Amino acid sequence: MTDLSRLFDPRSIVFIGASDRAGSIGQRALANLIEHSAFTGSLYLVNPKRDNLYERRCFASVSDLPEVPDLAIICTPAQSVLQALRESAAIGVRFAIVFTAGFGEVNEEGKAIEAAMKRLVHSSGMRIYGPNTPGLTNVTKRIGFAFSPAFRTDLRAGPVGLVTQGGALGRTLMQSMDRGLGIGIWCSGGNEVDLEISDFIQFMAQEPTIKVIAAVVEGVRDGGRFIEAALTANLHDKPLALLKIGKTTSGMAAAQSHTAAMSGEAAVNSAVFRQLKIIEVNDLDEMTDVVSLFVQSDPKGDEQIAIYSLSGGAAALAADMTELHGLRLAAFSDTTYRVLRDVLPAFASINNPLDISGNVLSTPEILYPSLTAVVTDPNVGVTIFPIPLDYGSFIETVCEVIVRVRNETGATIVPVWMSDRTGGGYGKLVASGLVPVRSLRNAALAVDRWRGFGRARKDHDPRWRPIARTPLAANVVSRSVSEFEGKQLLAEHGIPILRSRLCTDPSQIAATIEAIGATVVAKIVSADITHKSDIGAVRLDIRTVEEARDAYETITTAVRRCRPDAEIQGVLFEQMAPAGGIEAFVGVHRDPVFGHLMTFGLGGIFVELFKDVSRRLLPLTPSSAASLIRETRCFSLLSGLRGRPASDLDALERLLLAVSDFVERQGESLMTLEINPIWVGPAGAGAFALDAVITFER
Amino acid sequence: MTDLSRLFDPRSIVFIGASDRAGSIGQRALANLIEHSAFTGSLYLVNPKRDNLYERRCFASVSDLPEVPDLAIICTPAQSVLQALRESAAIGVRFAIVFTAGFGEVNEEGKAIEAAMKRLVHSSGMRIYGPNTPGLTNVTKRIGFAFSPAFRTDLRAGPVGLVTQGGALGRTLMQSMDRGLGIGIWCSGGNEVDLEISDFIQFMAQEPTIKVIAAVVEGVRDGGRFIEAALTANLHDKPLALLKIGKTTSGMAAAQSHTAAMSGEAAVNSAVFRQLKIIEVNDLDEMTDVVSLFVQSDPKGDEQIAIYSLSGGAAALAADMTELHGLRLAAFSDTTYRVLRDVLPAFASINNPLDISGNVLSTPEILYPSLTAVVTDPNVGVTIFPIPLDYGSFIETVCEVIVRVRNETGATIVPVWMSDRTGGGYGKLVASGLVPVRSLRNAALAVDRWRGFGRARKDHDPRWRPIARTPLAANVVSRSVSEFEGKQLLAEHGIPILRSRLCTDPSQIAATIEAIGATVVAKIVSADITHKSDIGAVRLDIRTVEEARDAYETITTAVRRCRPDAEIQGVLFEQMAPAGGIEAFVGVHRDPVFGHLMTFGLGGIFVELFKDVSRRLLPLTPSSAASLIRETRCFSLLSGLRGRPASDLDALERLLLAVSDFVERQGESLMTLEINPIWVGPAGAGAFALDAVITFER
Repeated sequence: MTDLSRLFDPRSIVFIGASDRAGSIGQRALANLIEHSAFTGSLYLVNPKRDNLYERRCFASVSDLPEVPDLAIICTPAQSVLQALRESAAIGVRFAIVFTAGFGEVNEEGKAIEAAMKRLVHSSGMRIYGPNTPGLTNVTKRIGFAFSPAFRTDLRAGPVGLVTQGGALGRTLMQSMDRGLGIGIWCSGGNEVDLEISDFIQFMAQEPTIKVIAAVVEGVRDGGRFIEAALTANLHDKPLALLKIGKTTSGMAAAQSHTAAMSGEAAVNSAVFRQLKIIEVNDLDEMTDVVSLFVQSDPKGDEQIAIYSLSGGAAALAADMTELHGLRLAAFSDTTYRVLRDVLPAFASINNPLDISGNVLSTPEILYPSLTAVVTDPNVGVTIFPIPLDYGSFIETVCEVIVRVRNETGATIVPVWMSDRTGGGYGKLVASGLVPVRSLRNAALAVDRWRGFGRARKDHDPRWRPIARTPLAANVVSRSVSEFEGKQLLAEHGIPILRSRLCTDPSQIAATIEAIGATVVAKIVSADITHKSDIGAVRLDIRTVEEARDAYETITTAVRRCRPDAEIQGVLFEQMAPAGGIEAFVGVHRDPVFGHLMTFGLGGIFVELFKDVSRRLLPLTPSSAASLIRETRCFSLLSGLRGRPASDLDALERLLLAVSDFVERQGESLMTLEINPIWVGPAGAGAFALDAVITFER
Repeated sequence: MTDLSRLFDPRSIVFIGASDRAGSIGQRALANLIEHSAFTGSLYLVNPKRDNLYERRCFASVSDLPEVPDLAIICTPAQSVLQALRESAAIGVRFAIVFTAGFGEVNEEGKAIEAAMKRLVHSSGMRIYGPNTPGLTNVTKRIGFAFSPAFRTDLRAGPVGLVTQGGALGRTLMQSMDRGLGIGIWCSGGNEVDLEISDFIQFMAQEPTIKVIAAVVEGVRDGGRFIEAALTANLHDKPLALLKIGKTTSGMAAAQSHTAAMSGEAAVNSAVFRQLKIIEVNDLDEMTDVVSLFVQSDPKGDEQIAIYSLSGGAAALAADMTELHGLRLAAFSDTTYRVLRDVLPAFASINNPLDISGNVLSTPEILYPSLTAVVTDPNVGVTIFPIPLDYGSFIETVCEVIVRVRNETGATIVPVWMSDRTGGGYGKLVASGLVPVRSLRNAALAVDRWRGFGRARKDHDPRWRPIARTPLAANVVSRSVSEFEGKQLLAEHGIPILRSRLCTDPSQIAATIEAIGATVVAKIVSADITHKSDIGAVRLDIRTVEEARDAYETITTAVRRCRPDAEIQGVLFEQMAPAGGIEAFVGVHRDPVFGHLMTFGLGGIFVELFKDVSRRLLPLTPSSAASLIRETRCFSLLSGLRGRPASDLDALERLLLAVSDFVERQGESLMTLEINPIWVGPAGAGAFALDAVITFER
């Protein structure tokens, strides 16, 4: 991928469409750059109608410039943008930002121009950011390529990299600077004819000033690039928090980038995000909560919680929220108990959650030693500090102590400002960069997500890459293979199936039954027939050669009568699954964006009523196969619920891994695969594919 | 129940423990009453050490007063509080508020004094509010019986009645006045020796100035009173929103009122709240969101949603949140389409969610007609208006239009202020009393809860009362009856069981088998043996008299060998349940707070893995029996999933109603009942209790 450093921090810029017409995009963007940015490189203005602007010389054309700038900023009317891009590319400009709107988002003509822009990118190597972009803000360097007057108000730098599609929600997050969040870079690539969200994530993953990435995403065109960007973030151990816009039917319909993908079921996207260690959030305020925790510190994943509170009610509510989000309260160490016993009034009950009680109003000096003891307790990973109400100068004192203890100890403290009145205490937290969370449930949720990343980061496998890396074309035609062929194919690739033989003539039956040596089931084999049972093309419980002959005759007659058109390959005789197993299933489909995705679950009811499945992008690894099985809620049925025998989990894992290998060998041509049921026997008895439907790209 | 009007709005008050010592509770409470309240009745000060205070005469004792005041406010030291209460009661004072702390919350001596206070209440009829209370605030009348200096800052009156236990979280909600919420009355009864949360809810339910009640509750001592209060709120059609503090083990341990009840599983409490049409919320900010919607308007329950947005991203996110919370977007009427087509720019796509696009910045005049058209659309019940960012005077204009349209149309509008920057626009919403919600997910959640109340209010049955109305004593001893007796008891009360006979002697077997006339199962009958299968005391599939004799012999021998101590009543021969049914179960337990609660669900796995049960306080009504069955997620198994035959739902409903009747006839002595399994046959085949365990208070 192209190194984008010079897009974010160019040495020289040409501004094409520079203007001093008040309110025009050219004028506003130029004002931000000249008056409100700290840009110190060369800036060339291009406007053929003017000699000077802002006391700077105007060039008539890009080709007149004395040097080749790193970046071209383009604000000209839509009809001349392509020309400006071509001229810039011609002289060797590396990056172009196009503010101008009125392209693919309005009509077919605009789409055609965007296609020409894409061709220019491929032919010239110049990278395009936009068109129709609100711009790019490098707060760290205080450089704004942006026409919004809000640029100059949102300049609190920090280690957050923000990536959005569209402008408004990005600005919402920029305004969380007013809650204490510092943001280093904000990108929003508009129509994304070239550079897109994945490129910005990729850049930020490698950019040393960025510690955590926040992305608000409607869709991505190229799932492979997105996955690569997420893996790069993993490689650099940088958390990537993501809000997916368009999770639902109506949300998707309303999302602006209709052409964008990630349009699958929300549950599929979420499973992929989880696998890629992306921290999925559900709203913008949650994004701020989560990201600010990562700014504060790195999670290990096993952090236990302390609650330090001024009120019993708030302590109890915080404990509720903590437990409801699956977090654990720490047991205080003896040292902490001793300090608290010394410092707190005798009647205080010293426990976690700690309520130092309203008496502190008259003895604020107890705050510092007691809070220090709690946050530095070796059992405590995070301290949640609920502040239920604004209480003037007393709460200012409290907040000063929080900031001081945080700065002195480096401990992770989550102040929770619960009141709608934001007074001086709130201001002190904000000023310190300790972003106060606005409710206890939000705090617990954020801590849970933060901790989850700590756990997830541990099993990073830098070599893992998905099987299919190119987007799936929209018009793919697929063909399916028969159950018999499908199972043979699976068996050839090491997936256990039950003993079976295809009989194309009744004379083969006796030998077949002897070879299988067990009770069998008979089924028609025909690529034309999918619902075999419905037309009497399946017979169970066949124990003798006579029964088998009778089954052969009955089935073929029934099929010829019901489906005279069907081409019959023969009758399959197959060992019946032994009693006492549990039925599971595995499906693989090629997601248009993310590639091959495996879905695992137990019998139909659990899937239908409780949507109890787990998912992984392929290929599986041994550890992901094990966790795929274990993260369904039904797992306890396999592990031996209420004294039942445990199932053969090793065999099931091997089967899933073999399916993954099989898909990998088939490559991008494999469209879908379903093994339903998988018979999973008791420990040692194995796991077998009983039925299989496989489709390939034709 | 006592009419509490004169507690909230007394004509005359005696203030016992009046003081001018700066910072003392007596001084601060008196200052609030004299300087910051609009109290116009008579105020008598009692302080035996002073002649005058604040230029008012001081009385030495309550008995010196020229009239009997409605209310005594008591701030004396703890050791003289009881005396002050007794003197007040002696002259006929009707209500006493005790600010003083240091009683039951600190030690046994304090508990003893509280017991004496309770006795005084019973003997005199004077009602006590407190002790250890932060006070009572009647914002509507601007009267504060409170010592907090915050009293004077939180005086935005409105139709919300607030009831809390403890002070801090109540003050948090009082400060939501800064988000535009008006609160008429706030009660917090401290140690609640007499008046408790239920009394305040009961009062507010009948108080005309209160439209909606918000309660933050750690526990209630008397579930019957609480239920009665909730039913009174239902009767007056007033929504009661409740936050339960102490939902979890750690939350419960931290809650202050350890003696209070409602200590059962959170899921049980939540089921009871739902049945009582209480709107349960999970955090304080959610309380403000939900309550402010009720202040704005009354829900019908079928409201559909419009989203009116200035940004495509916000529109899509709002649509996501709406759909994820089960809300439906309205289809705009033709009239609305016509207006929007006229008003909006030609390129705008006119749909719900509506994105009027950033162009409105230059044409703010389109806001008023387009918003008016949307909110008055006959298909639209609620309009969610996301405001993604503060954008200076433009957003002020937007907010002015929102307020104007709301005032002119009376339509329900939920403005969502998504940014952490709260500028002038936010202020305009707050000033108008349109409480801006702070995130889209919070808005969707609040609308969902509000609508849910609209649906729930429809099936109000004013006659329904629970079976057990007195709290369960802590030391109840229970006795269980044998399965055989239990089932006989059920059969006598109309609950279908399968044909069975008890044989106490082998000579009865032949006649028994003939009488049953079906395949039978044999089981030992003994009150001493609960796990019959484990010791070989059950035999299935008995078809002949010989098999039955053999079973009798084998079972009695096995029991005598394994459990020589057990008293054997005989062997029960019972018809085996036919194949093809579905197993359900029903349990009843007497919750210590709420009385008899029924739990219904399907087979073990669904309960164990998915906690898929539904619950109702008894007695059931025909409609609650039907919904009890239907609200489990497994219901589709009974209604005929994937072509299976539907179960006999009528029979199942009759069975549950008969169980409810049975419990009602047993009354408070019934402790637990479990029928597991219930065999539910296909339609017409009935439903039968196959096993039963019943325990009574001994």
